[in-house]
Amino acid sequence: MLTGKNYVGNKLSANGDVVFTTLNPKLNIKNSVHFTEASDDEINEAVKIADIAFDEFKGKSNLERAKFLNAIADEILALDSELIDVYMSETGLPEGRAIGERGRTIGQLRNFAALLEEGSWVDARIDTAIPDREPIPKADLRKMNVAIGPIVVFGASNFPLAYSTAGGDTASALAAGCPVIVKVHPMHAGTSELVGSAIVKAAEKTGMPNGVFSNLNSKGIELGRKLVSHPKIKGVGFTGSIKGGRALYNLAAARPEPIPVFAEMGSINPVVILPEYLANNASSIGKTYAGSITLGAGQFCTNPGLILCVNGDKLNEFLTVLSSEIEQAAPQCMLHPLIKTNFLNANVMMQQQKGVEVIASYGDSVDANYASQVVARVSGDEFLNNPNLHHEVFGPYSLVVVCDDAEQMEEILRGLEGQLTGTILGEVNEISRFSGVVSTLQNRVGRVIFNGVPTGVEVCPSMLHGGPYPASTDSRFTAVGTDSIKRWVRPLSFQNWPNEMLPKELKNENPLNIIRKVDNLDTKNSIS
Amino acid sequence: MLTGKNYVGNKLSANGDVVFTTLNPKLNIKNSVHFTEASDDEINEAVKIADIAFDEFKGKSNLERAKFLNAIADEILALDSELIDVYMSETGLPEGRAIGERGRTIGQLRNFAALLEEGSWVDARIDTAIPDREPIPKADLRKMNVAIGPIVVFGASNFPLAYSTAGGDTASALAAGCPVIVKVHPMHAGTSELVGSAIVKAAEKTGMPNGVFSNLNSKGIELGRKLVSHPKIKGVGFTGSIKGGRALYNLAAARPEPIPVFAEMGSINPVVILPEYLANNASSIGKTYAGSITLGAGQFCTNPGLILCVNGDKLNEFLTVLSSEIEQAAPQCMLHPLIKTNFLNANVMMQQQKGVEVIASYGDSVDANYASQVVARVSGDEFLNNPNLHHEVFGPYSLVVVCDDAEQMEEILRGLEGQLTGTILGEVNEISRFSGVVSTLQNRVGRVIFNGVPTGVEVCPSMLHGGPYPASTDSRFTAVGTDSIKRWVRPLSFQNWPNEMLPKELKNENPLNIIRKVDNLDTKNSIS
Repeated sequence: MLTGKNYVGNKLSANGDVVFTTLNPKLNIKNSVHFTEASDDEINEAVKIADIAFDEFKGKSNLERAKFLNAIADEILALDSELIDVYMSETGLPEGRAIGERGRTIGQLRNFAALLEEGSWVDARIDTAIPDREPIPKADLRKMNVAIGPIVVFGASNFPLAYSTAGGDTASALAAGCPVIVKVHPMHAGTSELVGSAIVKAAEKTGMPNGVFSNLNSKGIELGRKLVSHPKIKGVGFTGSIKGGRALYNLAAARPEPIPVFAEMGSINPVVILPEYLANNASSIGKTYAGSITLGAGQFCTNPGLILCVNGDKLNEFLTVLSSEIEQAAPQCMLHPLIKTNFLNANVMMQQQKGVEVIASYGDSVDANYASQVVARVSGDEFLNNPNLHHEVFGPYSLVVVCDDAEQMEEILRGLEGQLTGTILGEVNEISRFSGVVSTLQNRVGRVIFNGVPTGVEVCPSMLHGGPYPASTDSRFTAVGTDSIKRWVRPLSFQNWPNEMLPKELKNENPLNIIRKVDNLDTKNSIS
Repeated sequence: MLTGKNYVGNKLSANGDVVFTTLNPKLNIKNSVHFTEASDDEINEAVKIADIAFDEFKGKSNLERAKFLNAIADEILALDSELIDVYMSETGLPEGRAIGERGRTIGQLRNFAALLEEGSWVDARIDTAIPDREPIPKADLRKMNVAIGPIVVFGASNFPLAYSTAGGDTASALAAGCPVIVKVHPMHAGTSELVGSAIVKAAEKTGMPNGVFSNLNSKGIELGRKLVSHPKIKGVGFTGSIKGGRALYNLAAARPEPIPVFAEMGSINPVVILPEYLANNASSIGKTYAGSITLGAGQFCTNPGLILCVNGDKLNEFLTVLSSEIEQAAPQCMLHPLIKTNFLNANVMMQQQKGVEVIASYGDSVDANYASQVVARVSGDEFLNNPNLHHEVFGPYSLVVVCDDAEQMEEILRGLEGQLTGTILGEVNEISRFSGVVSTLQNRVGRVIFNGVPTGVEVCPSMLHGGPYPASTDSRFTAVGTDSIKRWVRPLSFQNWPNEMLPKELKNENPLNIIRKVDNLDTKNSIS
C-alpha cells in the first residue's frame, strides 16, 4: 500500500510541505496518492545515517552483501502485481514491458550477488617482499578495491525499475559496500516507494545497518542539488538528459572536495549503412530499423536517432520500406505529458532546420500522450553545416543522412559528439574497405555493433554502456554490467601489514579462494 | 648539447618571444642556456600533430609500443653523464639521487614495456552469444581497453626524471597508445630537453608517427592552461601543489567536453604511533623518523608531515631522540629559491598558530637555498580547533600532535583531508585494540603502512600512489605502478563483430595468449 512518504533509512517519514502526484499518461489523469517531498531535515538525516552506516556496511563480508542483494530481488518479486500495476499507472508502458524490466532488475541484483559470492571483483594485487633487494629492500605491498562512501542515485524516467530505485546504479553501489540515497524520479514516485520498501525489508531481514538505503521523494531539481552538494556524499549516479547530467557534474566539480558524477546522458546512436550491404539488404534494414526506432516509443538511450548512408541504387527501396513501416506502426503512449511536449518541440525544431524533409510519420491523429513516430532525411552537406542536427530527439524519431560518399560519412562521424553506441551495417569485406569510417566511429562511441540494432543493452561483463562525452561524463566506466561496480570503489594499498590484520582478500592463505595477481601472475594459490 | 628549443614533434622549434633560464640552487647562480617558451602556433601545431599521430599510434601493436618504451630507456641511458650533470645543476640534488632517479625512470619504462609484451592489461572480456536464449537471443559481446587520445603531462619540480618528461605519466600514457605533450617544468627545462631528445630519437628509431611526443618549454602557467583547454586534448597528468592541480581540474571540468585531470597533489601523510609500540621503541622511532623527515630535503609527496601520538611515559624519550637527530642532520639544498621561500613562509605561518612550539630545528645558519629542518609540537586540542595546522609545509618539517587519548586521535584523523599515505606504528595486538583509529586512517588515505616510513614509493602493481581528495583529484587511480595505465584508456565494446575484424586481443583464437574473462572465467583458452 502506497503511503507517499519517504524512507529515511528504515523509517517512513513525511515532514515536508511540498506535495505532488504522479500521472497516468495513458488515461491522462492524475494518480491518487500524494507524495511528500523530503524536507531539509530529512535530507540531512538520510545523509547522516548513511555516513554512519558506511562504517559498518563496508565491513560486511561479500557473502553478507550478496544475501542483501538477493533479498532485495526476492522482496521486489514479492510485491507481485501491486508493483506491476503501479508501474503501468505511472508510465503508460504495457504489462509485458513492466514484467520484462522487473526481470532485468532482479537479474542485475542477482548478478551482483554472484559477483560478490565469487569475490575476485576487488582486483587483489600482491607483491611480496624482497628483504635482500639492493640497493634497498622491497616492502610487501597488497592492494584491493574498497568502497568510497554514501552514493546518491537519480532515478531515470524511462526505466522506472532497471535504472532507478533498485536499478543498476543502486545494485552496483550496494554491492561495492556504499550506502545509497535514491533521489526519486517524480514521474514514478509510487514505483520507487514500492521498490524502496522492498530494499528496506531486505536490509532489515539481512541485518544491514539502518541508513544503508533511503528513498527521498522530490518534485523538482533542488533536492538533488542539495544531496550532490552535501560534504558526506562521495559519488553520484545519474541517467537522464545532457542538461541535467551536466548540471550535476558542474555542481560536483565545484565542491570543496569534488566527487565523481557518473551521468549517462544523451546519444543519437549513429548507424552507418555501407553500400554493398545496403544493396543486398535494403528492404530488411528498413523493416528492422522501423522496429528499433519505435521500440518503447523510442524512449531508449540507445534509440537509433541518426542513420548514415551513401546515395545509391537501393537507397530508395530502403527508404520506402522504412517509411511504410513507420507509417503503419501503432503509436505508443509516452511516459509523461512533459516528455511528449519535449518530443513535439524537438520535432518542430528539427523540421525548421534547412534541408530537413519528413519522409514518414504516423500523422497527427494520436491520443493525448501518444507519440507519432517520424523519420526525416537530410543531405550530408546540410548535416555538416548544421550542428543543430546533432541534437537528440527523445522519442520515436530518426534522421536519415544521405551522404555523397564514404569520405563525407567519415567527416560527419568525426564531427559528432561522443555516443553510447555506433552501428555498422556492412558486408564483412566492407569493414576493411571502409576502415576510415569504422575507425572514426569506434573513436566516438562506447559500443560498436555489427549488423544489428543499438537498442537492447545486455547485462554482462563485456557490456560498455557509456562512452565519450556527452554520452557519459566518464568514458572509463560503464553504467550497465558487473564492471559498473568499479565506479564506487577505490584501490587501497597495504604496506608491510601483518597477515592476521589484512582483509581476507589479501591474506596469505587466500581464504576466499579468489583470483589475485601475485608477483605479476594471476593465481588462486596461497602465499607461503 | 642543450639548445633551449621546444620539440614540436620531432622538430626543434623556438618561435616564441619569452625566454627564461634555469638556476643552480647549490651555487645560487643562473645556468647559461636560454630556453624559449613555446608560442601559440607551436602549441597548436603540437596538438594538431598529436591528434593526427593518435590514429596511427593507437593502431601500433603492443610489441611495437614496448619497443618504443625500451628504446626511450636506452636513449636516456645513452645521455650518460650529460643528463646527470644537467639534472644536478638544475636541482641541487646530489649525484646519487640523480642516478637513482634515472634508474627508477628507466625501470618504469621497462615495466610498462613488459606489461605490453605480456598483453593482458587491456582487461579483455568476452561473453559469447546464446542464439537460442529466451525470450531474446544473446548477442556476442567483447570488450577491451582502448586509448583515449592526446595527453598533457605536467613535469613535477621534485622529480625531474621519474615524475616528469619520461616519468610515470608519460610512460603510462605512451604505453596505453596516447600521444603525449609535456608541459616542461621551468625549474628543470634542460633536463626535460635532454630527456625529450631521447624520446624523439626513440620514436624515430622505432617508427612511431611524428607528433607522438612533444616537449614544450613554459615559463609560467599560461601555456599549461592553453593545453588543458585545447579541444583535442583528452586527459591531463599533473604532480604538484593543491593550488595548481585544482586550477587545472577546474579548467578541465569547465570545458565544453570535460576531460579527466589526474593531479597528484599535497599530502601531510599522518603517522600514528600507538602507545605500546611507542613505549617499546621510543628511541628507534625518533631516529628513523628524523631520517624520513629530512630525506631529500623533505621534498617528497610522502614526507611525514604529521605525527600523532598519545601522551605517556616514553613520549619524552621519543621527542628527545627525534629532536637531537633533527638538530644534528646536515641541512640540504632545496630545489629552487622559490621553494625555499615557500618553505620559510610556511614555517612562519605554522609558528604563528596558537600552541605550536618548535621543539627542534637546525637553526638559521644555512646557505642560501638550503633548508633548516624543523620539528614542532602541538596539543591534540589545539590541532582539532585549527584547520591551518592541516597545511602541508613542503620541505623538511613535521608537526608532532600530542593527543589526550586514542579517541582524540581518531577524531583528528576523521577531520583530516584525504592523504596519499597513512602510517601505523604499533604492536600487532594494537591494530585490533585501536580498530577505530586504524579504520578511520584507512578511510582517509591511498596507502596504509605498518611499522615503516611513508617515504619510498615502490613501483609495482600493488602500489596506490594517490588517495582521497586532495591527495589526488581521482582516488580511483594510481600515479605510480603499472595500474596507472588505466588513467589513459576507456573500455570499448564490440557487439556481434566478425572475428576476422576484431582486435587481436578479442579474437576467438587468442593469438596474443593473454588472460581474458570469457563467459565469466579468467582463461587463456581460445574460443571454439
